[in-house]
Amino acid sequence: MGRGLFISLEGGEGSGKSTQAKRLKEWLESQGQCVLLTREPGGTPLAEQLRQVIFEPAAALDAVTESLLFQAARTHHTTHKILPALAEGQVVITDRYLDSTRVYQGVLGEKSVAWVDELHRLTAGDVWPDMTLLLDIPAEIGLPRAKSRGDATRFEAMDIEAHEKIRQGFLQLAAAEPKRFVMIDASKSLDEVSAQMQAAVQKLLERGDA
Amino acid sequence: MGRGLFISLEGGEGSGKSTQAKRLKEWLESQGQCVLLTREPGGTPLAEQLRQVIFEPAAALDAVTESLLFQAARTHHTTHKILPALAEGQVVITDRYLDSTRVYQGVLGEKSVAWVDELHRLTAGDVWPDMTLLLDIPAEIGLPRAKSRGDATRFEAMDIEAHEKIRQGFLQLAAAEPKRFVMIDASKSLDEVSAQMQAAVQKLLERGDA
Repeated sequence: MGRGLFISLEGGEGSGKSTQAKRLKEWLESQGQCVLLTREPGGTPLAEQLRQVIFEPAAALDAVTESLLFQAARTHHTTHKILPALAEGQVVITDRYLDSTRVYQGVLGEKSVAWVDELHRLTAGDVWPDMTLLLDIPAEIGLPRAKSRGDATRFEAMDIEAHEKIRQGFLQLAAAEPKRFVMIDASKSLDEVSAQMQAAVQKLLERGDA
Repeated sequence: MGRGLFISLEGGEGSGKSTQAKRLKEWLESQGQCVLLTREPGGTPLAEQLRQVIFEPAAALDAVTESLLFQAARTHHTTHKILPALAEGQVVITDRYLDSTRVYQGVLGEKSVAWVDELHRLTAGDVWPDMTLLLDIPAEIGLPRAKSRGDATRFEAMDIEAHEKIRQGFLQLAAAEPKRFVMIDASKSLDEVSAQMQAAVQKLLERGDA
């Protein structure tokens, strides 16, 4: 995994991941860290191309094909961008990683979390984040936020019940791995959410230095 | 696997797979069979889109990402086209299937045949052809044929030594599964090759009827 630190941000739509990822990057840079901010699906030209395929409204993908495309994008992103940055000692922040597939295609989809993990083990060298910040927000707050952005993807077209299921899916994963996951109350103000994240990452940095 | 018959054509470049696939379809139809002729990577709009991504000269794909894209195309093709046709009792002829990935990414690539098989088991319901016709041809005959077509893909840009390795890779797979593979001498004339294939498929049909 190299010498850097690998941090993923996860959570449902409208939890503020993208905004908070940028804020976390700025804060880390102000602390003298070299930071790579990236996202999934995406992060490399090939993976961004696959993002277009996945989110095409007419795609009508079955769960397995969809998972394979997400994993192809993830493997390319991990091999060509994340691992080289970690090897250089950078802090890598990714807006979504494996846990999104574990929730959307595993907990909520036709496949299981164990199946998603097996595919990841087989194809992405079993790379896992050192820390996953779960931006938790009730669907009735997050969903209107996501919709007001006006850039609804296929997943964002879901209803409030589906969003609550996604939230519960993430909470289930977090409960199973309390050492990796850090819960962030994303219903608070932007500054309060940033402060919670900075406190968690500060601890990780201290642990990394030790 | 349904009631139909699933036949794959495999072999190196210039072995005449595409031409012979069409001839086999015509012959089967003349025997009263309902035939689906398809190809990989491809066979569905999504899989054809992925074919473009895979064969893009600038793609610079690592072996694992490439395998995942082939498998995403294969899973979509299998789920949405091959299995429904087999369920209807059709004879499905595909120009390349899993064995191509087993040779190109397994025997010749960075991964193993066992790894390719594991990915297939995990993501395509472990669907295998009932019969695989291996159109075997020495590289020094097949390579000039492929080049004269003028539609060289990335793989076809390889040299004669690489082609001979591909040939040996297919022979190795055939030796390991003599019941599924039927060797076809593709250095013969078009009619002679067609006759060899028809004889093999005739046996399969008789076995299927029994």
